[in-house]
Amino acid sequence: MAELTHPSIKNGWFSEVSEEYFPGQAMRLRVDRILHAERSKFQDVLVFKSTDYGNVLVLDGIIQATERDEFAYQEMITHLPLFSHPNPKRVLVIGGGDGGVLREVVKHSCVESATLVEIDESVITLSKKYLPGMSCAMDHEKVKIVLDDGFKFLKEAASLETKYDVIITDSSDPEGPAEEFFKESYFHLLYDALNPEGVVISQASENVWLKLENLRKLKNECTRVFPNVGYSYCTIPTYTSGQLGLMVCAKSESTNLRQPVRRLEPEEESKLFKYYNSKIHSASFVLPTWAETIINE
Amino acid sequence: MAELTHPSIKNGWFSEVSEEYFPGQAMRLRVDRILHAERSKFQDVLVFKSTDYGNVLVLDGIIQATERDEFAYQEMITHLPLFSHPNPKRVLVIGGGDGGVLREVVKHSCVESATLVEIDESVITLSKKYLPGMSCAMDHEKVKIVLDDGFKFLKEAASLETKYDVIITDSSDPEGPAEEFFKESYFHLLYDALNPEGVVISQASENVWLKLENLRKLKNECTRVFPNVGYSYCTIPTYTSGQLGLMVCAKSESTNLRQPVRRLEPEEESKLFKYYNSKIHSASFVLPTWAETIINE
Repeated sequence: MAELTHPSIKNGWFSEVSEEYFPGQAMRLRVDRILHAERSKFQDVLVFKSTDYGNVLVLDGIIQATERDEFAYQEMITHLPLFSHPNPKRVLVIGGGDGGVLREVVKHSCVESATLVEIDESVITLSKKYLPGMSCAMDHEKVKIVLDDGFKFLKEAASLETKYDVIITDSSDPEGPAEEFFKESYFHLLYDALNPEGVVISQASENVWLKLENLRKLKNECTRVFPNVGYSYCTIPTYTSGQLGLMVCAKSESTNLRQPVRRLEPEEESKLFKYYNSKIHSASFVLPTWAETIINE
Repeated sequence: MAELTHPSIKNGWFSEVSEEYFPGQAMRLRVDRILHAERSKFQDVLVFKSTDYGNVLVLDGIIQATERDEFAYQEMITHLPLFSHPNPKRVLVIGGGDGGVLREVVKHSCVESATLVEIDESVITLSKKYLPGMSCAMDHEKVKIVLDDGFKFLKEAASLETKYDVIITDSSDPEGPAEEFFKESYFHLLYDALNPEGVVISQASENVWLKLENLRKLKNECTRVFPNVGYSYCTIPTYTSGQLGLMVCAKSESTNLRQPVRRLEPEEESKLFKYYNSKIHSASFVLPTWAETIINE
C-alpha cells in the first residue's frame, strides 16, 4: 500500500497555517505517521499519529483535537454551561462528532438525554477508530446521534414544544461547513430552542491574541439575542496561540454565568475532571485589560 | 553586504525547537528579515523582523520577546510582586536586559531605585537599537544598569545592610547562562537580599502543559527557602504552548500574594497597563485541576 501523504505535512512535520486567520505564525507537530487522509463530503479530513501529542484530528487544515490536550477544551465547553444551569436534563450538541463533549456531558447524572447532531459521518467513524478516549460515550444509553446539518436540525427543533436546557456548539471554524454557526440568525434559533433557564455555549473561533474585533462582533451578535452573555476561554497548547475563546449565553438575566450554580465535593470534582473546577470556572472569564476593553465594553 | 543567515531560519520561517524541553512541537514565525545574528560572549543572539509580530529577540534559539505580545509577560512578572508589596522602594531586576521589566517598574511612583543586573551587554545594546518600546526606561533617573553576573551580584548584595523590597528574575531558560537561577542556592541568596516584607518572582521556564514535574521541583525548592510561595502564569502566544509560569515568593507568611495589597483607580490602571489588572492578578493563580494537584499539593 502506498504511504499516505497530505499537503500540510512536509519532512515529517505537520504545520497549521492560515493566511486569513493567523498570518505569519504556525504551530507545528512532529508526525509519526499519517493514519487517514480524505476529502469527505464536507471537508478535508486528516488524522495522524504525532510523536508527542498522541493521535491528532485535523479538519480543513486546522487542529481539532490531540489526545494529549483535548480534555481542556472538551471540559470547559461542556461544564461551563452545565454548571451554570440548576438542573440540566436535555442537552444538545451541535457538531462535536469526535465525541469529546458527549463524554463530558454524561458525567452529569442529572442529564437525561444528550443529542449530538454532526453533519460529517467521517468525523464520527474516524474518532471511533482513532480517538477512542474521546468517542467512548457515543454508545451511552442517554446519547442519541443524529447525522444532519446542525442549522437545519435546530430550525426544526426551535418550533417543537420540548426545549433544551443546554446547547453546546462544538463546531469547526467559520470557514467551511460551520459558517452558519457564527451568525446572528443561528443565535436566534438557539434562543428559540431553549428552556427559560437555558444556557448555550459556542467555540468563538478566535482568542484575545488573534482577531479581537471578530470576538467583539460575535459578542455583539449574541447580545442582540440573549440578555446575558459572557466571554470565557481555556488554555490549550495545540489551538492557535495556546488558547480558545468560548461565548456563553443565558436566556435568563438572573443566571450568573461566572459562578457555578451547582458544586460537587472537591474529591468528586477532581475525580471527574482533569481541567475544570469551580475556581477556574470563574477565573476563565477574567481577561487582560486590553481584551476586556474591546470585548466587554 | 552578504545577507544574514541563522540556522533556526529556513525558507523565510523561524522555528523554535527544543528536543529536551518541548520535543515534537515547534512555534514558527514568518521572517521579514534578519536584523542581527551573533554568538555573544554568553549565548547565541538573534534579532529578526517578523511579518506579523514586530521585531523578535531570540537567545539560544528560544524566543525572549516579540514587540506584539511582550507586554503580557513584562507586566505580569513586574506587577504581581510590586502590587503584593505595600510600599516597594528598592527594586532589583536580575537579567531583563531588554528593559521591558524596567519600563514596568518605573510606572510605580513609590519606587525610588530600580537596579538591573544583566550579564550580556549585547542584549542591552540590541534592545536599545531594535526594541525601543521595551528599552525606553533604561535612561530613567531611577534606573541603574550593572553589567555583571546576577548570581555573583546577589551574593555580594546579600551581605549588605541595604536590602531590596522586590527582586525580579527575568532570565532566559535554565540551559545556558541562567542555569544558576533555578537552583535552591539562588533562592537563599534572594531571601538574604530581601527586606522583611520583600517579594521575589522568577520566570519558571516551564508551564502546566510542559514539564509539570520541573515546576513542582522548582516550587519545592522555593518552599524550602520561603514560607510563602505561589505559582502564577501569563498567557502569551509566542512562548512555548502559549503561556509561561511565574514563581512568586514572599519573605513574610502574612503577605497575600494572590491579592494586590495596593490598588489603583480603574481608569489609572487601564491607562498604565495593557494586560495587568487587579482581577487578573488573582485569576492568574487559579490552575486547572491536574496542574493544581501536581504543583500545589
